[in-house]
Amino acid sequence: MTARSAPARPPIPVGRFEARLAAARRLVAERDLSALLVGVGADLRYLTGYVAMPLERLTMLVITSDGPGRLVVPRLERDPAERSTAARGGLVEVVAWDETDDPHELVASFISGRGSVAVSDTLWAVHLLRLEAELHGSTFVPGSSVTSELRIVKDADEIELLRLAAQAADRVIEQVVAGPLVGRTEADVALEVRDRLVAEGHDAAEFAIVASGPNSASPHHEASDRVIRPGEPIVLDIGGPLGGYGSDITRTIWVTGGDDAAGPHDEFRGIFDLVRDAQSEATAAARPGVAAERVDAVARGIIAAGGYGPQFIHRTGHGIGLEGHEEPYLVAGSPDVLRPGMAFSIEPGIYLIDEYGARIEDIVICGPDGPIALNEAPRELYVVDG
Amino acid sequence: MTARSAPARPPIPVGRFEARLAAARRLVAERDLSALLVGVGADLRYLTGYVAMPLERLTMLVITSDGPGRLVVPRLERDPAERSTAARGGLVEVVAWDETDDPHELVASFISGRGSVAVSDTLWAVHLLRLEAELHGSTFVPGSSVTSELRIVKDADEIELLRLAAQAADRVIEQVVAGPLVGRTEADVALEVRDRLVAEGHDAAEFAIVASGPNSASPHHEASDRVIRPGEPIVLDIGGPLGGYGSDITRTIWVTGGDDAAGPHDEFRGIFDLVRDAQSEATAAARPGVAAERVDAVARGIIAAGGYGPQFIHRTGHGIGLEGHEEPYLVAGSPDVLRPGMAFSIEPGIYLIDEYGARIEDIVICGPDGPIALNEAPRELYVVDG
Repeated sequence: MTARSAPARPPIPVGRFEARLAAARRLVAERDLSALLVGVGADLRYLTGYVAMPLERLTMLVITSDGPGRLVVPRLERDPAERSTAARGGLVEVVAWDETDDPHELVASFISGRGSVAVSDTLWAVHLLRLEAELHGSTFVPGSSVTSELRIVKDADEIELLRLAAQAADRVIEQVVAGPLVGRTEADVALEVRDRLVAEGHDAAEFAIVASGPNSASPHHEASDRVIRPGEPIVLDIGGPLGGYGSDITRTIWVTGGDDAAGPHDEFRGIFDLVRDAQSEATAAARPGVAAERVDAVARGIIAAGGYGPQFIHRTGHGIGLEGHEEPYLVAGSPDVLRPGMAFSIEPGIYLIDEYGARIEDIVICGPDGPIALNEAPRELYVVDG
Repeated sequence: MTARSAPARPPIPVGRFEARLAAARRLVAERDLSALLVGVGADLRYLTGYVAMPLERLTMLVITSDGPGRLVVPRLERDPAERSTAARGGLVEVVAWDETDDPHELVASFISGRGSVAVSDTLWAVHLLRLEAELHGSTFVPGSSVTSELRIVKDADEIELLRLAAQAADRVIEQVVAGPLVGRTEADVALEVRDRLVAEGHDAAEFAIVASGPNSASPHHEASDRVIRPGEPIVLDIGGPLGGYGSDITRTIWVTGGDDAAGPHDEFRGIFDLVRDAQSEATAAARPGVAAERVDAVARGIIAAGGYGPQFIHRTGHGIGLEGHEEPYLVAGSPDVLRPGMAFSIEPGIYLIDEYGARIEDIVICGPDGPIALNEAPRELYVVDG
């Protein structure tokens, strides 16, 4: 087993964290919150650069409108916490608790007043219940009310990482499409995808959907032991984080096994073309000032007009950044209006149960002058020998 | 990239899930709970066999004392949910919600009465806040009050998976200790560990602590770019799930670089021997009827008597199963008394900051007649050329 070369992952500079923490503190004050409490997860990484494991031992960033930012950690995690960009930059004070201390009581001791307390969305319920008991009388609200407002618009450093992730995923698509595919199981191809995602620089391979034949009609199909055969489609939907920021790309392939007679038939061509048009028009619509739900409506309108509305059974897209799914969501009812710097997937699909399906997905940035697709792999139907 | 052969991972039979669900329902009734609400995570896998991704879309098992078990899932996840062992066995009814439905309202509609509601410990706070609003007037309590009571004692199928995981981790320790080690970075060795954990059958490599020289004094050190040198210790602490059940083993190595003069000095030998004695005696103490905190006290007493009490800075162990850390915790103040079938780590250590440290860890089952160590790799100090 040889060393893999670590790909370039430009670090987020300390000044970014200073600005993010200041913005969070400002929102806490503006909204009369007693505190913003951030557990392990993407919000914590965004605000401090600290990547912690989700453990039963409480780790929590405490932000109030006035006091210093405090990063409460189990004593065992003091060293890695001190090495986070925010701690090294003197932006937060690390406070360690011992095995027999009560960390929730400690967190509560930093909070004065009994106003609303925002807690990060992915904090474990067991911690929230303990905090509710310690801060009895406070109202608790989702921390995304503060953190999503910050995280929903990506800065240049974040966009650069999203671009590197997208380009790495593009390369994996090209490598896998080159085959061989026919005669292999979906699970085997998925292992190849996972290995290649990491080899191309991802921190980890988070998902590798390989949906062949009738399985392509299931949007979240996991790779199975089904053997890929000539004359059928494969939907590949793959990705993972790179420097913390996610890739997520889908391409649809048709394998012929080298037999021209086993090419895509007219109905499949038809649904693929609809999906391609929907994806392309929805992308073109993703401009500043446009409602997120409008982008969904554009894709849905095209597919419905083609007669497959009921077969487009999921939203058009989701935001992406430190989480694979985050705001804004491109779906009817979304409150979000697109702004420059927002990053999201655009991924319409059509699914004919027990027959086949097709989907195309790119990660797109809402640029100041219009959409910027980070993925550059061709969006046509890949018709290959396989 | 070649296909890896899938190792044997005996599936948990449907009868186990039937018994687990019945036991959960009985506890819900006995404790006058309105419901047990189980989000994505180990509790859900334990009760249904369903392994779901933690997504912003709500997935929730609803167990009441009378009604059928209901598994509420986003429409997109209906297929995989239906394929879970519990759903295939007719033990739970899968209820799918659509993109524009309110899933929290749907969950609340299945709950009558306004008694206490237990929610799984790792449910996201954002979901708990929505449920608290929907079920206003209810008191919420941690779901572990029900699920830990079930999960804390492993059945024969679970113990078999823990044993397979431990044996796989044992093999990786032996492979890595065989070297080469000197001249490589910790990070490079950690990559090797991760590759080998998967090659030996793990579902994933969850952690690979490679702590060399002074880094060995940091119990949760992550692998760094430090180059391993002759004449220093390495603490290897590695593991991950296999068939869902965790391995977790620590061994301490001393690399000489082939130079006999670079062997371990007396002080290091001294602390290692203390750790070995503490680990061995604590293991011997892990018998039915013994308090979990007593096992901690045995290890701590030996190390304290040797003069290193303040340098043993963490608890002696943690339960292990579908989660890497779960009940029982071997720590002062633990309420648990050991029973046959409990599984936990025993992992005392001594850490001299900026100098070096040593730790030994096994996974141990509390058997009816005494402790059963699942790890069989030698527990002596590995003195190797490296």
